[in-house]
Amino acid sequence: MLRSSIKSIAPASVANFVCAFDVLGFALATPYDEVILRTNSVKQVRITKITGDQNNLALQAEKNTAGMAIISALKHLNSNQGIDIELYKHIPLGSGIGSSAASAAAAIFALNALLKLDLPMLQMIDYAMDGENVASGCRHADNIAPSLMGGCILVRSLDPLDVVSIPIAANLYCTIVHPDLEINTKYARSILPTSIPLADAIKQWGNIAALITGLTTNNCSLIGNAMYDYIAEPIRGKLIKGFAQVRQVALDSGAIGAGISGSGPSVFALSDSEETANKVGQALGELFLKHECKNQIYVSQINKNNGAKIL
Amino acid sequence: MLRSSIKSIAPASVANFVCAFDVLGFALATPYDEVILRTNSVKQVRITKITGDQNNLALQAEKNTAGMAIISALKHLNSNQGIDIELYKHIPLGSGIGSSAASAAAAIFALNALLKLDLPMLQMIDYAMDGENVASGCRHADNIAPSLMGGCILVRSLDPLDVVSIPIAANLYCTIVHPDLEINTKYARSILPTSIPLADAIKQWGNIAALITGLTTNNCSLIGNAMYDYIAEPIRGKLIKGFAQVRQVALDSGAIGAGISGSGPSVFALSDSEETANKVGQALGELFLKHECKNQIYVSQINKNNGAKIL
Repeated sequence: MLRSSIKSIAPASVANFVCAFDVLGFALATPYDEVILRTNSVKQVRITKITGDQNNLALQAEKNTAGMAIISALKHLNSNQGIDIELYKHIPLGSGIGSSAASAAAAIFALNALLKLDLPMLQMIDYAMDGENVASGCRHADNIAPSLMGGCILVRSLDPLDVVSIPIAANLYCTIVHPDLEINTKYARSILPTSIPLADAIKQWGNIAALITGLTTNNCSLIGNAMYDYIAEPIRGKLIKGFAQVRQVALDSGAIGAGISGSGPSVFALSDSEETANKVGQALGELFLKHECKNQIYVSQINKNNGAKIL
Repeated sequence: MLRSSIKSIAPASVANFVCAFDVLGFALATPYDEVILRTNSVKQVRITKITGDQNNLALQAEKNTAGMAIISALKHLNSNQGIDIELYKHIPLGSGIGSSAASAAAAIFALNALLKLDLPMLQMIDYAMDGENVASGCRHADNIAPSLMGGCILVRSLDPLDVVSIPIAANLYCTIVHPDLEINTKYARSILPTSIPLADAIKQWGNIAALITGLTTNNCSLIGNAMYDYIAEPIRGKLIKGFAQVRQVALDSGAIGAGISGSGPSVFALSDSEETANKVGQALGELFLKHECKNQIYVSQINKNNGAKIL
């Protein structure tokens, strides 16, 4: 017998792991979004409640990432099952740590359990990407996949979809600083060049190879050396007041490396202890204040194994 | 007291590890080049003997990769020490498995021991690159570094020079097939585009991240999935008769993946056993014969730890 209601959570995530732009993201331990699903008999997907969004999210299911993920799944499964969605946002909207993806991930994970669908992970990612598309105008998986699977996830290919879990040997802590700036994801994508110098691409993939080696072999200095992005950061960094000093301030406070989270405006830094990660957060917070940007600071261990969960 | 003569060897290598074009190469267990150095009192670097080159190599030191590596080192060290070089080539010239790099690597490794220079590895690579430059017209390290250090080496950056040893968990065997074709290295470089679509670059670095993960975690199917090159292979493959069928023939014979070795004309395939590697060699050899290309086949374990050595 199907359960009539189910509760799930899915964690925040950082996409565009610096040099590994568009292919690598990782999940955080906290914060996470929470979803409660209930079957209904009216054969509709409805959002019945949203909290934590300061009334910024639409209640129409097809305009909401969680709603659209479920609509997509039911459509592909030829199901007319009605579902009511309650969405409890704990990840601030537009914070650059995968808020929209976490809602979609939690929703599809809950649907899978509620209807006992036994969906393969790739299928869940695929449906959740349709949800993410509502928020970012782009079907990408580098927040969705870590949010669903936990840990550090490589999106090796989108067509066909192929994801790889990268075993992280190192114990890493992530500092995220979200300055009060608005960057439209679609705009941040539109300003990237459609072609890049081969020489820059080669430098970039040298760093990506070094980053993966550092992550899998617990070599923090190698991770730090590799955390440079020749492609997106020089362009997107200009949209973030104070970004020019972010890396140096983070390194001076003991961080391993730093970069832009997703397409910004949040920045992130990695450290090898929680103490350092807190220190880095304080220093970066002060840096943004100097640039007249109020900001929120999050510190979380990199989530090694915990993706979406049924509570 | 300095020894008056010394003998060293350095192994063959495969550069341009498919998707990891220009940044990743690996050493083979065999064949290798052999160098004997002797101090002389005439304050000159001289090549006194070359075997195995079918009289194709110049005896002038500055036109020879081994000679030039030594000239470069002595110049940087402000030394006027005279050196006589005997060079025993066991790696066929132009075979696409780092023949010129192995001679330079063996020479610089022997010089370091002969004169008790205690050079750091990066310095030896740097001098050997000056030798490699004589043969390829380009200072690159993706054959030199594996030949000196052994194993699979990432050239993360050329300026400043930074190399990273990639720990290979898997036991891999390499089949190299050298068809009787001539491809000029400088030409093979000149036909590459100077800029590439960002979308292709992203696909390429997704594969690179997967390749490194597969190598470090002993995941052969991941290594195979990652061994596709969107940048150089579509262009350089056209210079190699029969190349269009190489991957399929190799996979059909049980290989994990295949690609071009260096800038060609040799192709290589990886397998998880020596037996399969031999089978792959036979099938690829027949493929090239069908295209009227005589060929030589080499099978060697990927060399995990053994670079240049003093005998």
